[in-house]
Amino acid sequence: MNAEIISVGTELLLGQVVNTDTVIVAKELSSLGINLLYSAVVGDNPQRLKAAVETALHRSDLLIMTGGLGPTKDDLTKETTAAAAGKKLVLHEGTMERLRQYFHTDTVTEYQEKQAWLPEGCTVLQNDNGTAPGCAFQAENGCRVMMFPGPPSELEPMLKNYGIPYLKQWQEAVIVSHNIHIYGRGEAPVAQMMADLLEGENPTLAPYAKEGECYLRVTAKAKSEEEADQLCAPIIQEVKSRLGEFVYSVDVETLEEVVVKELARQGKTLATAESCTGGLLSKRITDISGSSEVFHMGCVTYANEAKEALLYVPHEILEQYGAVSEQTARAMAEGIVKRSGSDIGVGITGIAGPEGGTEEKPVGLIYLALSDGKNTWVRKRMSNGRMKNREWHRHCAASQALDMVRRYLLGLNVLTEYK
Amino acid sequence: MNAEIISVGTELLLGQVVNTDTVIVAKELSSLGINLLYSAVVGDNPQRLKAAVETALHRSDLLIMTGGLGPTKDDLTKETTAAAAGKKLVLHEGTMERLRQYFHTDTVTEYQEKQAWLPEGCTVLQNDNGTAPGCAFQAENGCRVMMFPGPPSELEPMLKNYGIPYLKQWQEAVIVSHNIHIYGRGEAPVAQMMADLLEGENPTLAPYAKEGECYLRVTAKAKSEEEADQLCAPIIQEVKSRLGEFVYSVDVETLEEVVVKELARQGKTLATAESCTGGLLSKRITDISGSSEVFHMGCVTYANEAKEALLYVPHEILEQYGAVSEQTARAMAEGIVKRSGSDIGVGITGIAGPEGGTEEKPVGLIYLALSDGKNTWVRKRMSNGRMKNREWHRHCAASQALDMVRRYLLGLNVLTEYK
Repeated sequence: MNAEIISVGTELLLGQVVNTDTVIVAKELSSLGINLLYSAVVGDNPQRLKAAVETALHRSDLLIMTGGLGPTKDDLTKETTAAAAGKKLVLHEGTMERLRQYFHTDTVTEYQEKQAWLPEGCTVLQNDNGTAPGCAFQAENGCRVMMFPGPPSELEPMLKNYGIPYLKQWQEAVIVSHNIHIYGRGEAPVAQMMADLLEGENPTLAPYAKEGECYLRVTAKAKSEEEADQLCAPIIQEVKSRLGEFVYSVDVETLEEVVVKELARQGKTLATAESCTGGLLSKRITDISGSSEVFHMGCVTYANEAKEALLYVPHEILEQYGAVSEQTARAMAEGIVKRSGSDIGVGITGIAGPEGGTEEKPVGLIYLALSDGKNTWVRKRMSNGRMKNREWHRHCAASQALDMVRRYLLGLNVLTEYK
Repeated sequence: MNAEIISVGTELLLGQVVNTDTVIVAKELSSLGINLLYSAVVGDNPQRLKAAVETALHRSDLLIMTGGLGPTKDDLTKETTAAAAGKKLVLHEGTMERLRQYFHTDTVTEYQEKQAWLPEGCTVLQNDNGTAPGCAFQAENGCRVMMFPGPPSELEPMLKNYGIPYLKQWQEAVIVSHNIHIYGRGEAPVAQMMADLLEGENPTLAPYAKEGECYLRVTAKAKSEEEADQLCAPIIQEVKSRLGEFVYSVDVETLEEVVVKELARQGKTLATAESCTGGLLSKRITDISGSSEVFHMGCVTYANEAKEALLYVPHEILEQYGAVSEQTARAMAEGIVKRSGSDIGVGITGIAGPEGGTEEKPVGLIYLALSDGKNTWVRKRMSNGRMKNREWHRHCAASQALDMVRRYLLGLNVLTEYK
């Protein structure tokens, strides 16, 4: 089944809004084994929209329209598409009833009523998060047509709850993907290690780089989800055996999630002492719901006085080695363990830029320390590639600190060489 | 001048990558006054790409291609587009020289050389951040064609540094936009207050909602930037006079930037005491380069013991009123002032969810306190709309805290009613 998406909205052509609808729909089509051959954006213009819809009805088996279902004059997706597909619009009483309930009124305005006019004989896709329903029907020429509202918060649940069950009627194959998350090995060395596996056809294996990390996606196509999973399993196993401890999870999204879960499993607590990351590490840990079990305290010690007062960093160390030094990072990690009584303390200090770098201590130099009260490990991180900014340095430093905690918890070498 | 974008890449049709190229290009076209009428995505398929290019050459004055300029077999944008436009590819010696330098070699591989074959007579758009150059030329039928590499980190600087100067040759008008940032008034009340101004044609005024804030964009079209600015000025003035203190900036992106600048201007320092936001507030403050001048210390006190130990929150208050209470927020703000010696302290405590809510203290209940050592103000924030999640509650709480600081610094009512 060959599919096509048309997103409607002038705002998408002005660069004011990112077209996330297409990504949401494309992902779902891909996982259903439906080939998406084109996606297009057309403004709120009836002539151009009509031309685009006619072309699509002609060349595709499935046309998905997003946006332009609302109550205003600009919203002309339904009228234009239904006309091109040879369908009349009729008033849908169920939707009228929902509108009356939504607005707590007996008389829905003319504008609002517009949303209840739907192509005759269509399957109505209920909108649980807004007023404009979607719909699905077959055009006169046989092409299947589906329409979804533009706001992603309405489209996404409607697609998942009502659109996909509708589509599954013609599903020929299931596509299943698993993501193998890697920390400490970049995309290039990973691709080299997996060169033979990247040639595979079913499942396929593909490397991706993302915010200083790398992951491999294993994708299999089969008659059922179970069968697709069985195809993936040996590849996942092989990747894990080649990359070993550098694989931090399969299908878990983030390092912080892995770390919080492992801390909870071991009944251990973590505390943070941050300088250049300014709270980003504690923010990422507390992004995880339930992190309060394992994270009780963090200190953001931006000024030297704060490092001394909160973390007992000796004045002499700051004087002699400077705030950005191995010694200060070590003292911060040890200090936060003492201050918090947590099992593990992490200290981060460095130069995130764009200002503040020197020849000796350039932007991107960051020290990361982990202490368990008995032993302390310190890593030096340098990063001076092009296109690297403050946000990048801070994000990567927080990630590396999280991987140090993961490694410590799993009894791995905290100071392993990253490549 | 009517323009069209075609992005090339199967990965865009699988939902694996968001098409940010289109947004980047669309924004720039819009600011140049060039009308973008269509944007489309086509996979790495020569037949479909050829058809799409032919349609575009036929109906548009300017065709912008993104992606598919790289060295591999999949990269067929240049070959396909040049053929459709009636142009031969010729080897560009300047690019060959750049490739030799880039790879530190005398002999560039056949794959790499592919990137140096460009449409004859084209203007070469240099790639300062990668190997594949872009190009610009006029097709046989008169349509202007430009090609850019796919990675946004290569496309964006190439577009700004070489693409826009090329485009400016035919520029008929300049479009200038200014964003008026608002905190404490939502999109609906703002739109209502500005109803008459929203009808304007040049400049136009349009309201947008973004992450719990609202902004108004004023856009004018004129012969020169100065003229466009002169058209915008009275509208900006009028909006500011209607919204008063709820306008926090024009064209400055974030509340944190405004707050850091105002603190610096007044020579004041701020310290943070965070519970439910877990470091997000200090992270946002330290996102701003140079924040070390005004921000010395933050404490993330997730556990009650941490609130007592670091912020001197009395045990009895936590016992009697609970960690999520007006009293605790007040004690946190006052405690961090004492602990840090800063001029202003902010305390945040609440329930970010999705777990931990009760009937009495539901998810989304957050207390925010500001203290200057003499006086303390506490706000209660409730948020229980649909589609609100942990990230949303945390983000909005941090924003509100920043607005409280802004209001305090400007001598405005810290406890004003937000609508």
